[in-house]
Amino acid sequence: MSRTLYDLKSLDGRRLSPFGQRVHLALRHKDLGLDKVELVRFVDKDAIAFAKSQSVPVLVDGDKVVADSWRIANHLEDTYSDRPSLFGGEAGRALARYFNNWCGIWLTAEIASFILFDMLQHLDEEDRAYIRRTREPRFGPLESLNETREARLPSFRKTLDPLRLTVKQNGNLHGAEAGMADFMVAAAFHWAEQSSAFALLTSDDPLYSWSKRINGQSP
Amino acid sequence: MSRTLYDLKSLDGRRLSPFGQRVHLALRHKDLGLDKVELVRFVDKDAIAFAKSQSVPVLVDGDKVVADSWRIANHLEDTYSDRPSLFGGEAGRALARYFNNWCGIWLTAEIASFILFDMLQHLDEEDRAYIRRTREPRFGPLESLNETREARLPSFRKTLDPLRLTVKQNGNLHGAEAGMADFMVAAAFHWAEQSSAFALLTSDDPLYSWSKRINGQSP
Repeated sequence: MSRTLYDLKSLDGRRLSPFGQRVHLALRHKDLGLDKVELVRFVDKDAIAFAKSQSVPVLVDGDKVVADSWRIANHLEDTYSDRPSLFGGEAGRALARYFNNWCGIWLTAEIASFILFDMLQHLDEEDRAYIRRTREPRFGPLESLNETREARLPSFRKTLDPLRLTVKQNGNLHGAEAGMADFMVAAAFHWAEQSSAFALLTSDDPLYSWSKRINGQSP
Repeated sequence: MSRTLYDLKSLDGRRLSPFGQRVHLALRHKDLGLDKVELVRFVDKDAIAFAKSQSVPVLVDGDKVVADSWRIANHLEDTYSDRPSLFGGEAGRALARYFNNWCGIWLTAEIASFILFDMLQHLDEEDRAYIRRTREPRFGPLESLNETREARLPSFRKTLDPLRLTVKQNGNLHGAEAGMADFMVAAAFHWAEQSSAFALLTSDDPLYSWSKRINGQSP
């Protein structure tokens, strides 16, 4: 049985999809390897059309095709239930869904507003045009985001206070051991770090070392 | 063995402590009764000094004295582990802590900014003065809050989108059956409703019917 992940392609090997990174972290947690990683650009819609999806990640796990990182996490949890759990039971799964929604509705868009312009340098010309075309209706000219980001930073950091306190108290969101809730949120910070040199978090922020640890880099 | 809850006293029998309401909901979930409810005012610090606490709720459960609603929830979960679970396991407990922090850091203060002035009418003169003295350094004159609240409402409601979506998807935050995460968040909306006629949520909002259901009122 073969396992292939379709993930986002950058110019320089950086992981620029927070949702792809979630899947890497979930696979590592379950100690499941990949036989192949297919890197596709934003514009390569044809390459993932077989999954009836417009975006990566797509996981092909044997004869099963699963698109969307939340659905992939659930597939892995249910298919490999004898391996370390991503959710820690049904209540953990239900509450993790909140973090999936929080990331989808708020955190990802918020982080985008700090790093999207810088991310362009890691994409080829066609993907740059794609990002401009799809994101500027929402965010305005991406250059302008960088002009206001310093001023917006304190409020962003403050909104993370409940997350920060929980990580301090528990060790991770999910408890002493990290789980899918951690992977989803930390993957968003990984995306920021891969895309831009702009420091979203100060190095003495507990969320900084937590994110580094979750993403498997030394802090 | 006797069980007594120290909760907040109002002029008219309303439950004006969101943290007291959490304990009522947790006790009901575990099907545990109370032998006595001692109602104390904000200013009655002496009445709960035995618990080394400055605020209600305080639960006296047999020979055990527990202050703070989060600690009370953990006490009930661990002491009555054969009864319906409040957390659904250790991951559920760890993730519920996020909602305790989110309520403590953000939601309660945010709701206060909409209803604190109206709440005064349900308190006696000494408690009114206490609330002014302790809250106005943070919020400014409480009257002014009511002048700006209509304008602030759309942004407040929008911030609830991740919660709203999760409740729509799961039935509750905690899943098909409600748990402590639901009790903590819904208790904050119960407090709003007990304190003020101001409609924080529209009646067609899924969070409106969810909160009513959790708090045991017909929607």
